[in-house]
Amino acid sequence: MSLIDLNSDLGESFGQWHMGDDATMLGIVTSANVACGFHAGDPSGILRTLTSAAKHGVSVGAHVSYPDLVGFGRRNMDIASDELKGDVIYQIGALAGLARAAGTRVRYVKPHGALYNTIARDERQAHAVIEAIKAIDDQLVLVALAGAPLLEWAREAGLRVAAEAFADRAYQSDGSLVSRREAGAVLHDADQVAERMLRLVREGVIETIDGQDLTLAADSICVHGDSPGAVALAEAVRARLTQAGVELRAFAGAGS
Amino acid sequence: MSLIDLNSDLGESFGQWHMGDDATMLGIVTSANVACGFHAGDPSGILRTLTSAAKHGVSVGAHVSYPDLVGFGRRNMDIASDELKGDVIYQIGALAGLARAAGTRVRYVKPHGALYNTIARDERQAHAVIEAIKAIDDQLVLVALAGAPLLEWAREAGLRVAAEAFADRAYQSDGSLVSRREAGAVLHDADQVAERMLRLVREGVIETIDGQDLTLAADSICVHGDSPGAVALAEAVRARLTQAGVELRAFAGAGS
Amino acid sequence: MSLIDLNSDLGESFGQWHMGDDATMLGIVTSANVACGFHAGDPSGILRTLTSAAKHGVSVGAHVSYPDLVGFGRRNMDIASDELKGDVIYQIGALAGLARAAGTRVRYVKPHGALYNTIARDERQAHAVIEAIKAIDDQLVLVALAGAPLLEWAREAGLRVAAEAFADRAYQSDGSLVSRREAGAVLHDADQVAERMLRLVREGVIETIDGQDLTLAADSICVHGDSPGAVALAEAVRARLTQAGVELRAFAGAGS
Amino acid sequence: MSLIDLNSDLGESFGQWHMGDDATMLGIVTSANVACGFHAGDPSGILRTLTSAAKHGVSVGAHVSYPDLVGFGRRNMDIASDELKGDVIYQIGALAGLARAAGTRVRYVKPHGALYNTIARDERQAHAVIEAIKAIDDQLVLVALAGAPLLEWAREAGLRVAAEAFADRAYQSDGSLVSRREAGAVLHDADQVAERMLRLVREGVIETIDGQDLTLAADSICVHGDSPGAVALAEAVRARLTQAGVELRAFAGAGS
Repeated sequence: MSLIDLNSDLGESFGQWHMGDDATMLGIVTSANVACGFHAGDPSGILRTLTSAAKHGVSVGAHVSYPDLVGFGRRNMDIASDELKGDVIYQIGALAGLARAAGTRVRYVKPHGALYNTIARDERQAHAVIEAIKAIDDQLVLVALAGAPLLEWAREAGLRVAAEAFADRAYQSDGSLVSRREAGAVLHDADQVAERMLRLVREGVIETIDGQDLTLAADSICVHGDSPGAVALAEAVRARLTQAGVELRAFAGAGS
Repeated sequence: MSLIDLNSDLGESFGQWHMGDDATMLGIVTSANVACGFHAGDPSGILRTLTSAAKHGVSVGAHVSYPDLVGFGRRNMDIASDELKGDVIYQIGALAGLARAAGTRVRYVKPHGALYNTIARDERQAHAVIEAIKAIDDQLVLVALAGAPLLEWAREAGLRVAAEAFADRAYQSDGSLVSRREAGAVLHDADQVAERMLRLVREGVIETIDGQDLTLAADSICVHGDSPGAVALAEAVRARLTQAGVELRAFAGAGS
Repeated sequence: MSLIDLNSDLGESFGQWHMGDDATMLGIVTSANVACGFHAGDPSGILRTLTSAAKHGVSVGAHVSYPDLVGFGRRNMDIASDELKGDVIYQIGALAGLARAAGTRVRYVKPHGALYNTIARDERQAHAVIEAIKAIDDQLVLVALAGAPLLEWAREAGLRVAAEAFADRAYQSDGSLVSRREAGAVLHDADQVAERMLRLVREGVIETIDGQDLTLAADSICVHGDSPGAVALAEAVRARLTQAGVELRAFAGAGS
Repeated sequence: MSLIDLNSDLGESFGQWHMGDDATMLGIVTSANVACGFHAGDPSGILRTLTSAAKHGVSVGAHVSYPDLVGFGRRNMDIASDELKGDVIYQIGALAGLARAAGTRVRYVKPHGALYNTIARDERQAHAVIEAIKAIDDQLVLVALAGAPLLEWAREAGLRVAAEAFADRAYQSDGSLVSRREAGAVLHDADQVAERMLRLVREGVIETIDGQDLTLAADSICVHGDSPGAVALAEAVRARLTQAGVELRAFAGAGS
């Protein structure tokens, strides 16, 4: 039988500002990428999300970011390696403390936004993140875009890794995502997306924006929950996969 | 033989702004209250201080604060209990992560500035801090002003506590510190301060500003390192105590 | 004919986090209290709100706050007078710059949240705010709760003032608002609220929570727009007043 | 007779953290680039620096930055144009408000750190800054590195500009500064620096690191004050120039 993980970005409210429907998404996904305060998330709000994740048996990951609240971590930043390393350790530690208070623990690290995109290919910053993870807990799994050089760098450094695919994004034939600035970059048809993900799990293949078959080895599928349409799409992916007999299970795990 | 701990506030630089002489102070004290990023301290700078503390065998505590960089944590803040609890867990966790990367660990918690003063007597905020500590690690020791009601509240809640005296501050007969706004609040004569501390360790007595003998049970003496004069005073206290045969040892310990 | 101003808190989004329906509210109110970045509002978002306010001919005020994004400016803060004075000037100046870029200008100052409540009665902090306003532009009008001592302190200092009433809040017989923690503090019936406001404008009287008639001299009515219900209530107040022949006009004015 | 301006970065303390010797530097320079809170400077500290600048008759400029306190504005940031425009207007406005309270006004804008370097050559970000300045006050002068394309872009857009040279930095033959990472990038010999600056003023020529003569048209010389050595060097430059009959006068001016 096939296995896959579903992950989503959660804990992204901040003070009086709300974002996403964490309670609903925690009933859909098997892994929760929880904000650590640098792009989103205040401590008491993060703690509530973690407490809910623990109750749902959802695996918790640190969604670490550049320090950029106003930019939501989406701006590239030319940060020194020792500063980036410190920032990543700080965030994982902070989330680990809150996770302990919530009765769970941090199992993996998924960089957020601009940091995610940058370290997929920038070796200097990638190594700062890898060193940070090894320095705080070398059992943590690093999540990266399926096909990114980062996966190999992390493996070589002795880290366990998980490769992820994006449910609602179009792919180019080199395995990169179609930029959000281009037409067709984001998929909205829930049935189509669900079928794509089922094929990815069963065959390890996803169709690119120009109609080619792309081989993609994914341990996890990223779904979003920041709009009612996004939640519906996530539910459709979950339903299609489970109906087809695919087991949804965290790659690093609440149950493991 | 008598025993006492010497503690100091460290890791209080921030980015390009430097404060204190951490390297020198880590050769004097037995416990380092390390900033956690809310009143001072950036992650990579904190990591350097922790690495140095580990090398010196100095015990590490989390110097947790209200979230107030521009005010250096010195402003009272009417913060909700769940927010304060979250903030304290977050800071301890972040420091614990950095400490692990530095090859050491967090042994105790010493609230900073306005938070220190407020929870000495404010039961609501005190309990938020106590609950935070218990939620993340109930083996952590809470440091409070000798004589403060907080010590009893924490003990009743099952926490270990350490009472501290301030080397360079004048005391009132009720055990409170003379306000910095009043004349004579801060002592500058290193020899006089050293003698006061020796008497405190040997007899459990300190002379108040109006010449009375005040009984004070202290596990630790707080010394400062934010000026050359402060460092000299800390060195004088250390020299006088060791010369008199007092053993300087962390109350929660690097060696324990 | 009677005259009244309608004001509302706007520009309170921050980066990716949205709050309120500024576009709709700018079609209802005559004065916009615009966040200045200390409790909410990022510069480019504030600029969009100001540009829209200019287009609607709505008068602009600086909604100044304690520096507290994560607490949304709702926590009391024991801030030194010179720090508060500097913070208020900084915020008014920043908003004035953005207003100029938007083709409008700042006409008044309305403190936000905890600062609003504190300076209504705390003379030290009140004077810091008054001095700040006089130092940057002594033609700015200060908005305060109708009946608050602040109004008199500001008048004595030579500032123009505007007194405001809250459309959706219950009053006590001493003129203070019923605390949000008590039942009945917030009114939800749009028709009832609209009638209350019409009576306030016509007779200068509002019924208190215990059924007394309270005399209240108000230059402006504060309405909220942070939920669909709030917007509907604001629209009901506007409709009832204009239908009864009350002219809605900014107290400090876009047209003046 | 020759004329030149001396400028320096001031107001860069933050809360309890001190940086630079503003009081001394204000007795040396003719123009003060004052931090606006995004890389350094808290409002009450900025106000003190501005008050001192007003007393010394020193011209004030807005030292605008990317929003990056912990990185001191020295990290490149991939910021959207409308966000950068908003940030620059906000900072100029805030400083203008504080300047008004201090009895002076903002005459020019000098971008700081990474923003300074980036917009010297990046046309997109350069235009965002130019548009920001024009939107708030098109009489403000923009200061840029002598020889940078930014000067021409700004002129074409209708802004007045001032070109500056760095007293203590080595130049390459293309007019760019030798990177701080290379040997010889920073000059420390006060007499040598003073002579270089005198030649620059008299002949419009500076010797490059490889011994060539470089033609450089400069309206202002930037000197630093962040160490006792830097202050001494600034004093040496001032003394040599005035002794040689060069008049030191702000390019945009306190006296104009």
